[in-house]
Amino acid sequence: MTAFPESHKDLLDAPVAALTTIGSDGYPQSTLLWFLHDAGELRTSLSTARVKTKNLMKRPQMSLLILDYSNPQRYLEVRGNGVLTPDDDYVFANRLGAKYGADISAYDGPGVSRVQLTIEPTNIYAVDMGA
Amino acid sequence: MTAFPESHKDLLDAPVAALTTIGSDGYPQSTLLWFLHDAGELRTSLSTARVKTKNLMKRPQMSLLILDYSNPQRYLEVRGNGVLTPDDDYVFANRLGAKYGADISAYDGPGVSRVQLTIEPTNIYAVDMGA
Repeated sequence: MTAFPESHKDLLDAPVAALTTIGSDGYPQSTLLWFLHDAGELRTSLSTARVKTKNLMKRPQMSLLILDYSNPQRYLEVRGNGVLTPDDDYVFANRLGAKYGADISAYDGPGVSRVQLTIEPTNIYAVDMGA
Repeated sequence: MTAFPESHKDLLDAPVAALTTIGSDGYPQSTLLWFLHDAGELRTSLSTARVKTKNLMKRPQMSLLILDYSNPQRYLEVRGNGVLTPDDDYVFANRLGAKYGADISAYDGPGVSRVQLTIEPTNIYAVDMGA
């Protein structure tokens, strides 16, 4: 279990976060996505069809920025390595979907499979620019 | 002048954006900061004391994610190269400060200087996950 800063624990249940991976062209790529604080870790579900998944397969270095949509001065940045594990049966995707009341399998076309992404943090920054 | 998508032009005047640079350790680093849509380009002011500035000096590849704080499903991602130019006299920093009613020089300690960061976009993604 990762110890996240007490001051920002509410953000572990926030609705969206920005995941940044590094593309094969060397540019960072950032997208907003759903995530879940699950078994003490930050996790999300990725489709194998997406570029960010392919990026992480080649290069696990990533960051997750969790924003406080009620206060733009406050955020949590988690930098670390992304660990991908198969989720062919949607066991994790269904746990994530439950947070949002959504069926994640409905987003996937034929031939696509799911992986679970777990962040192994190397650095955690809890920021409040207004504090 | 960069042509930004009409659908997301309001976000060019948003209060904060997430700048991602790549550190010497190969990990992406993301921080929220002030920015300005200035002379047709996205720009911000950086202190030479900050790690993100040193990252960009070595490696210009960056991304800027502009969030819609009234709608977490909507954002603009601008990927590109960061061009740094000296701003020792705070000419640009004062233009940026005017957007926020702030004196940016008040944040800088002795021995610190300012640079202007202009993004030269390579890719622009206007996203609305709810559309």
